[in-house]
Amino acid sequence: MSGNTFGKLFTVTSFGESHGGAIGCVVDGCPPGLPLTAADLQPDLDRRKPGTSRFTTQRREADEVEILSGVFEGLTTGTPIGLLIRNSDQRSGDYSKIARQFRPAHADYTYQQKYGARDYRGGGRSSARETAMRVAAGGIAKKWLAERYGVRIRGYLSQLGPLAAQSHDWSLVETNPFFCGDRNLIPQLEEFMIQLTKRGDSAGARINVIAEGLPAGWGEPIFDRLDADIAHAMMGINAVKAVEIGAGFASVEQMGSEHRDALTPEGFTSNNAGGVLGGISSGQPVVVSMALKPTSSIRIPGDSIDVTGEAVEVVTTGRHDPCVGIRATPIAEAMLALVLIDHALRHRAQNADVISETPSIPGVIDL
Amino acid sequence: MSGNTFGKLFTVTSFGESHGGAIGCVVDGCPPGLPLTAADLQPDLDRRKPGTSRFTTQRREADEVEILSGVFEGLTTGTPIGLLIRNSDQRSGDYSKIARQFRPAHADYTYQQKYGARDYRGGGRSSARETAMRVAAGGIAKKWLAERYGVRIRGYLSQLGPLAAQSHDWSLVETNPFFCGDRNLIPQLEEFMIQLTKRGDSAGARINVIAEGLPAGWGEPIFDRLDADIAHAMMGINAVKAVEIGAGFASVEQMGSEHRDALTPEGFTSNNAGGVLGGISSGQPVVVSMALKPTSSIRIPGDSIDVTGEAVEVVTTGRHDPCVGIRATPIAEAMLALVLIDHALRHRAQNADVISETPSIPGVIDL
Amino acid sequence: MSGNTFGKLFTVTSFGESHGGAIGCVVDGCPPGLPLTAADLQPDLDRRKPGTSRFTTQRREADEVEILSGVFEGLTTGTPIGLLIRNSDQRSGDYSKIARQFRPAHADYTYQQKYGARDYRGGGRSSARETAMRVAAGGIAKKWLAERYGVRIRGYLSQLGPLAAQSHDWSLVETNPFFCGDRNLIPQLEEFMIQLTKRGDSAGARINVIAEGLPAGWGEPIFDRLDADIAHAMMGINAVKAVEIGAGFASVEQMGSEHRDALTPEGFTSNNAGGVLGGISSGQPVVVSMALKPTSSIRIPGDSIDVTGEAVEVVTTGRHDPCVGIRATPIAEAMLALVLIDHALRHRAQNADVISETPSIPGVIDL
Amino acid sequence: MSGNTFGKLFTVTSFGESHGGAIGCVVDGCPPGLPLTAADLQPDLDRRKPGTSRFTTQRREADEVEILSGVFEGLTTGTPIGLLIRNSDQRSGDYSKIARQFRPAHADYTYQQKYGARDYRGGGRSSARETAMRVAAGGIAKKWLAERYGVRIRGYLSQLGPLAAQSHDWSLVETNPFFCGDRNLIPQLEEFMIQLTKRGDSAGARINVIAEGLPAGWGEPIFDRLDADIAHAMMGINAVKAVEIGAGFASVEQMGSEHRDALTPEGFTSNNAGGVLGGISSGQPVVVSMALKPTSSIRIPGDSIDVTGEAVEVVTTGRHDPCVGIRATPIAEAMLALVLIDHALRHRAQNADVISETPSIPGVIDL
Repeated sequence: MSGNTFGKLFTVTSFGESHGGAIGCVVDGCPPGLPLTAADLQPDLDRRKPGTSRFTTQRREADEVEILSGVFEGLTTGTPIGLLIRNSDQRSGDYSKIARQFRPAHADYTYQQKYGARDYRGGGRSSARETAMRVAAGGIAKKWLAERYGVRIRGYLSQLGPLAAQSHDWSLVETNPFFCGDRNLIPQLEEFMIQLTKRGDSAGARINVIAEGLPAGWGEPIFDRLDADIAHAMMGINAVKAVEIGAGFASVEQMGSEHRDALTPEGFTSNNAGGVLGGISSGQPVVVSMALKPTSSIRIPGDSIDVTGEAVEVVTTGRHDPCVGIRATPIAEAMLALVLIDHALRHRAQNADVISETPSIPGVIDL
Repeated sequence: MSGNTFGKLFTVTSFGESHGGAIGCVVDGCPPGLPLTAADLQPDLDRRKPGTSRFTTQRREADEVEILSGVFEGLTTGTPIGLLIRNSDQRSGDYSKIARQFRPAHADYTYQQKYGARDYRGGGRSSARETAMRVAAGGIAKKWLAERYGVRIRGYLSQLGPLAAQSHDWSLVETNPFFCGDRNLIPQLEEFMIQLTKRGDSAGARINVIAEGLPAGWGEPIFDRLDADIAHAMMGINAVKAVEIGAGFASVEQMGSEHRDALTPEGFTSNNAGGVLGGISSGQPVVVSMALKPTSSIRIPGDSIDVTGEAVEVVTTGRHDPCVGIRATPIAEAMLALVLIDHALRHRAQNADVISETPSIPGVIDL
Repeated sequence: MSGNTFGKLFTVTSFGESHGGAIGCVVDGCPPGLPLTAADLQPDLDRRKPGTSRFTTQRREADEVEILSGVFEGLTTGTPIGLLIRNSDQRSGDYSKIARQFRPAHADYTYQQKYGARDYRGGGRSSARETAMRVAAGGIAKKWLAERYGVRIRGYLSQLGPLAAQSHDWSLVETNPFFCGDRNLIPQLEEFMIQLTKRGDSAGARINVIAEGLPAGWGEPIFDRLDADIAHAMMGINAVKAVEIGAGFASVEQMGSEHRDALTPEGFTSNNAGGVLGGISSGQPVVVSMALKPTSSIRIPGDSIDVTGEAVEVVTTGRHDPCVGIRATPIAEAMLALVLIDHALRHRAQNADVISETPSIPGVIDL
Repeated sequence: MSGNTFGKLFTVTSFGESHGGAIGCVVDGCPPGLPLTAADLQPDLDRRKPGTSRFTTQRREADEVEILSGVFEGLTTGTPIGLLIRNSDQRSGDYSKIARQFRPAHADYTYQQKYGARDYRGGGRSSARETAMRVAAGGIAKKWLAERYGVRIRGYLSQLGPLAAQSHDWSLVETNPFFCGDRNLIPQLEEFMIQLTKRGDSAGARINVIAEGLPAGWGEPIFDRLDADIAHAMMGINAVKAVEIGAGFASVEQMGSEHRDALTPEGFTSNNAGGVLGGISSGQPVVVSMALKPTSSIRIPGDSIDVTGEAVEVVTTGRHDPCVGIRATPIAEAMLALVLIDHALRHRAQNADVISETPSIPGVIDL
């Protein structure tokens, strides 16, 4: 109830601070029989890991995950899977000053207000370091969705500050540090980031994630619609300020005759719905887009107050990402996987006896 | 788990179809001692009610709510509050045709896929008629938040199709059927709606809702952030396709030095965060914006398939809103109230002993 | 979270006071396609109903349940099922005196302490009248379990005050007002009850419920074991003070060599476990026994205090059951059904892909 | 939903198998500001630990708990507390045989049926080793309850096999390996256990736990009554087969005039209710008793089947407790603490504004 558990049937309960002994989580509800080793989870952890390019923070966390339970003889057993990553590259000395200051746009002030105290080292619990566990847990979900249903989940960066992608080629996404699929944009992104870092400022980003291959029928109408749970998951990622499904805000200016996706015997002909109708998956690709605000930790001085309410000038001097959106793609993919597996299990709990009794039609394969 | 309950400590469990005997809900967890009568809930129900202007559906539902339990001698007792609205103006004959067809952009196809069957009369459970119960339940939350914490929740329409408000005056919002605060826009909206209805088409809309007066400290970090739960609540409203908090998608193009809201001894100086930092309320107004897609039921014929997979042409002939966004303002307000009361209770469960031990600073009062 | 919802996947959310407008509940998570009418639920409601013999309270409630939603063309649709029973035979005048007194062994004092106020008419929310909704909801669960899995749930009274059954014949249970299966005991029970009523006192009882036919595999180990959830369900019935599974307290004096139920190729040879091993059903009959305390409302004067803390003498003069245990059998059956259906759904959510891959062995058919 | 999380506001999510890398849990919802170190949790872990007397299993687990998160500068921060105990004294070789056999009265058969596979080493997830984490988590709850409300939770063994305590002196309980408070019984218990071990058999036990000092008002009526949640907690402990609150099964033979606890201006005069009325604490001591079945692992050969359904003779040769009840006292105390802290938080979430507005009366201090 304190908000550290995600999901209802496939649950992830997370713990740990950026500068404590470890971060970890418990994944409960994973179906038995899934082949699983730590090596399955490491690739996405490495994609999220800091320090892999000059465009992210130069902190170096090994981020090697240990599976403590729930796997026996290489297969999940249906019992909870404990995951642990020991913290290594901490420089607590960097953070001593902020013990008494509230950094603007950070959670310092609100944690202090909520709990009457806070672990101020490196953001403590509010640090994005915690998202490594989401990526690890999401890796289990991704694997099960792929093996059991053939679901494929991919994401990419579609805009960084003012630079928006004009084209998209999936084959490029994993070849550059930005997860960008527009060949022409990549050099511009590099130059933009170099200038941004020089100025000591930071930039926002837009990330898209897409799930393909899921069947129709996932999602619980009324409050726990598939799109509502996706919005919950994405807005729960550090720095996310906005979420769209399908046409999103563009649907404000669409006419009904334009927005509605026609069904034909050959399948849907468009995907303004983003794969969700009435809160339930339609079998079309689920298409999600989100905005991440610029990193709050920047070298440019800013006005704030200290714990006594006095005015102070804050300068953040640690090693920070100039654009948190860059490393957000694997996190958003993981959260989408966690939503989908949860709804896959919820759906079959209630509807196991009627699943597949009705015909399914193809979705629009690409956007 | 089937998604018909909203909230964790202040819960709303909803039931009912548009053409069944009644719609209703159970509100559980309401603190005792709140003065409450059906008359407290009726004004918001009337604001949502169809048929109050020429610009909404001409169905006429009395929408008179009955309080069945949980109130004794005019005060809530802490036991569950049963709410009931009998359905009255149903014309089931209107819907017989759609029993075998899947209306495009409707939930017909996905309900059929999920459950193997569906109540096709008037959309059944997927009808927006169910939102009347959210408004009723939200009315209880609104009243408690106002009386206990002085929280004020208001909403308005900021765009309808291509027509976006250029100014905002709260005093106008309740004086026109669109909940619009831009005096110059109102006649344009009327004309636009008349033309839209003539063409038999529908339009999307953008709605904003704002909560003022809440203290810092509400929201559970990590997964159940206040903004994540708001996104869940809003995306769970029929037809909503996108949600923003504070600067929302505009934060993609902001620099960190521009986005961050300075704290000063006199209070915050801007509100790009939309009242939430690290998932916890900052004491600033909570600012939410959302997109509603155009109504799916339109008179213009569209391509679809029937339950056997054969191609059909669908024309929707019932009485439908040409813009569902128009009646969405009280629904969005209700959902925001439900999120806030839930987090108010969650916060004090864990933190009752430390609340108010730290100083609070003023927020930016208006947008 | 305020405790008015039972179950996790098949949930019952209950509302209503004994002297309010109605009692009701929402059943969420019922699989679609189950044939269901109010007539399916009425028999168990009639078995629980007061006033059907001289040995129960002479209040006369019609207890006719109305299905408000979730059923279409005679079949459940998978959407929430709203159930309602209007209150009819209330004599609020009977209860005016207790507004200021705390009746011993009642919930008057604790409700007042918890909520600062209470609906004192007929026990308000703490009245056993609320259990009618459990019986109605349990009727849906019973029907689904029977149709889908062939599960049969039955209960009987095995002791009333000092009178314990020495034999058990299922065919007798529904032929006497006590739900007793011991032919010789029935006339003794009648005489005992007549004397008890004359004295104005009340008596306790022991009730047994048994579920047969369920498969192995239901129950979630560690905290939500099948037996733990059964204990929760039974101890949550008004007046229940103790719960046993299988050998129960007798297992204290058993040796391990005596308690353990041997497995043979022909099946289990005994059932000390009561059908549950490690929190998971073994396929043997689930055997539950419980104690119900004597009715608290009796005509014999008792010492108590009033709301100001002053000593008072309390005499309860309304129409009350001299033994609440008599009407408890259908309630206990309903609760067992609610636990089982919930675990049936939980089991298949996680384990749908491995169910039935291993051989099952027969259980001991009778106790 | 897979049953590895206990509690709703103060939650414990457990993971780990007896022969995996570690066992651990996440405690979420702990109020901030509680002084906490691993040393606070160690005493109860040591009380539960195997190998501390000749009457328990001779396995030697250090059972040293590590606090991984949620504590900063010696105080809880309100964020989740990760707890970890590495497994050390495992002899996996002992268990190779049971890979293909189902030990009678164990969870082998049911885990296999449920999940299609199982970690057979030392019982895997079904091993009582997991209860070490309950004791650790319960230690946090105990400490908070004591510091915040002055609640004291204690337990003792009241019967072992046929040997029942005839007197009770709290000061003796921690001075003998049985947690027994009857001076005369202790030598008999020693002799009984020696004979039992010689025979290779095992015995059941009865454990009582009592909480004193809690206020009236804890517990959520209807389904999540305080006593119902206690029953759930206790029946969820390995080997527990029965639970009583207050008079328990004795209430079957009590008259209403005898069972009801009188309220007087000086306080309650008896405690048949066991501290709970209508599911809500009355301020009297909460009194719980439970039966633990004899250990299933015994050296006496028993009939069973193997994974192919063939008859086999099973002899359990590992190091096992001849009476699991002996080490159960700290586990039962921990579970009671977990129930109480959860309801303390639930109560104040809803009722923070009315708490303490009504007078409280003293309870019966001892049984």
